[in-house]
Amino acid sequence: VTQSKNRDEFARIARFFAPLAAAYPGAFGLRDDAAILAPSAGAELVVTTDTIVEGVHYIGDEAPALIAAKLLRVNLSDLAAMGARPRAYTLNIALPAKVDDSWLAGFSAGLAADQEAYAITLIGGDSVATPGPATLSLTAFGEVPAGAALRRDAARIGDAVYVSGTIGDGALGLRAARGVLPGLAAPDAAALIARYREPQPRTMLGPRLRGLAHAAADISDGLVADLGHIAEASGVSAVVRADAVPLSPAARAALAAAPGLLAVVLGGGDDYELIFTAPRSAAPALQALARELDLPIAAIGEIASGAGVRVLDARGAPMTIARAGYVHGTGA
Amino acid sequence: VTQSKNRDEFARIARFFAPLAAAYPGAFGLRDDAAILAPSAGAELVVTTDTIVEGVHYIGDEAPALIAAKLLRVNLSDLAAMGARPRAYTLNIALPAKVDDSWLAGFSAGLAADQEAYAITLIGGDSVATPGPATLSLTAFGEVPAGAALRRDAARIGDAVYVSGTIGDGALGLRAARGVLPGLAAPDAAALIARYREPQPRTMLGPRLRGLAHAAADISDGLVADLGHIAEASGVSAVVRADAVPLSPAARAALAAAPGLLAVVLGGGDDYELIFTAPRSAAPALQALARELDLPIAAIGEIASGAGVRVLDARGAPMTIARAGYVHGTGA
Repeated sequence: VTQSKNRDEFARIARFFAPLAAAYPGAFGLRDDAAILAPSAGAELVVTTDTIVEGVHYIGDEAPALIAAKLLRVNLSDLAAMGARPRAYTLNIALPAKVDDSWLAGFSAGLAADQEAYAITLIGGDSVATPGPATLSLTAFGEVPAGAALRRDAARIGDAVYVSGTIGDGALGLRAARGVLPGLAAPDAAALIARYREPQPRTMLGPRLRGLAHAAADISDGLVADLGHIAEASGVSAVVRADAVPLSPAARAALAAAPGLLAVVLGGGDDYELIFTAPRSAAPALQALARELDLPIAAIGEIASGAGVRVLDARGAPMTIARAGYVHGTGA
Repeated sequence: VTQSKNRDEFARIARFFAPLAAAYPGAFGLRDDAAILAPSAGAELVVTTDTIVEGVHYIGDEAPALIAAKLLRVNLSDLAAMGARPRAYTLNIALPAKVDDSWLAGFSAGLAADQEAYAITLIGGDSVATPGPATLSLTAFGEVPAGAALRRDAARIGDAVYVSGTIGDGALGLRAARGVLPGLAAPDAAALIARYREPQPRTMLGPRLRGLAHAAADISDGLVADLGHIAEASGVSAVVRADAVPLSPAARAALAAAPGLLAVVLGGGDDYELIFTAPRSAAPALQALARELDLPIAAIGEIASGAGVRVLDARGAPMTIARAGYVHGTGA
């Protein structure tokens, strides 16, 4: 929290953000030039960061607490994909003059709630004025034992491909929020929209996959795209059996009404589930872990030699899943 | 480098930014969900971050390499103020469509040059589109031995107050760049403008002050304001002798023409020198260090009981130095 800034910016930091850092001595109340971050003995830090822009990644009329939660959680999802436990975060906010104290109160309350939920603390940041749209960057820090981080480039031929939770709810939820998913019962639509608006980063699962999984990523770009990232980084190919991909009841209802939405389920993004590869021998341990965490883990395919991702339908025939195209999240 | 993004954004990262991370294995070529940052044995990380907005903190028509260098260096100045050695950084950029490849080439070239100069490496970030002005956030990571970081809150009564280099050149340079510093010889104006546009963070000095200095900050808000931060955090007061504040030849020329500019020198910002307090017994070691680093270190005042910062003129009479008012850096 440095560089020349005006009194309003200092006051804003002191009022809305310093309380979020109060429990962390190394943040010096956000009044020093920098914060101190000391990893636990034997641990490495994992660093991830995302930027969202009003009008691009969100509309702007969402509840500010939800915007805060989503910004934090997409980063926690990245930490989970690396097998890291959340530890701390910094926040850079460029805010237009129209952002008032009630917006900031909601935004910081959303952060406060998630700090509790995910055991993470604000340790620093910057707040500036902008003549443009609100632009929010969050950088999250997690910890892993040295050398134990999960990576994308470690898939091995013969591994099974697993996903946590259910797939496609985020992308379907974006469409439901935009009103372009007709014919869906209201509770199903609400369930999908909630999944889009409030990601549930798999912060409990990720660290437990260390030693079990070979490669891992979170599903932010879409199942096929993110599995493709793993395959490419690992120099292997992947096969997905479409009918093995776990779906929520709401997603199943949506697909029953419009089977063509399977491309959205497999190609859309915003799931924030984990996708990972593991040897067959890990299956019993993974199922025990799924029960312990009360979070389904499903085998959906295999890693093979070659390159690329192939999706097979229920009869084993190849399907074409174009990456569903990037859909900016302005429908939330 | 995560969250859904379009192919242009991926291509931009691969072309202009991945090369900046190539030497750092833990950055995974900017293709993984996160980066790994492992502090040296016994070290803590120091984290600092700044955001700059086109049209607020810079005009936009500056050479992109200079924008990059300034963004990086103001953060390196914060690390120096904590006594930390630069180690790595992340970069979040929200760019309007008008930003073309030649701008990005210049911007990344500026980063590349400073990576060499300051032994620091890009390890991650995010690149998104914005309908608004370019918004650039940089988060820098440094290292200090555990528990050895310099802080603002450690000034002690009886300490001397020191500054590195010369004071006021940045604030005068901003005015010279805006053409509101008339009557100055061209070489003097050029020298001041260069000091404003190209901060020289005291990355060599900062770590050497560990064990010598009590409290430290960098001068970004202005000498009086930043010393005020030290005094407030430490629960002490400070006295500055105005005629002991070291000035560059160009600043002396500007003051000779317009003595009223002393308020700009003492109250303006953008010096990126270090201000610190140290016991009198450290004076010989500090002078030896100044010679070794070829960087002047000047005693300009004392720490006393009470609160606030008092500035005394050459006759010992109190001067009123209003904080020169925050001047956005749009004159660069």
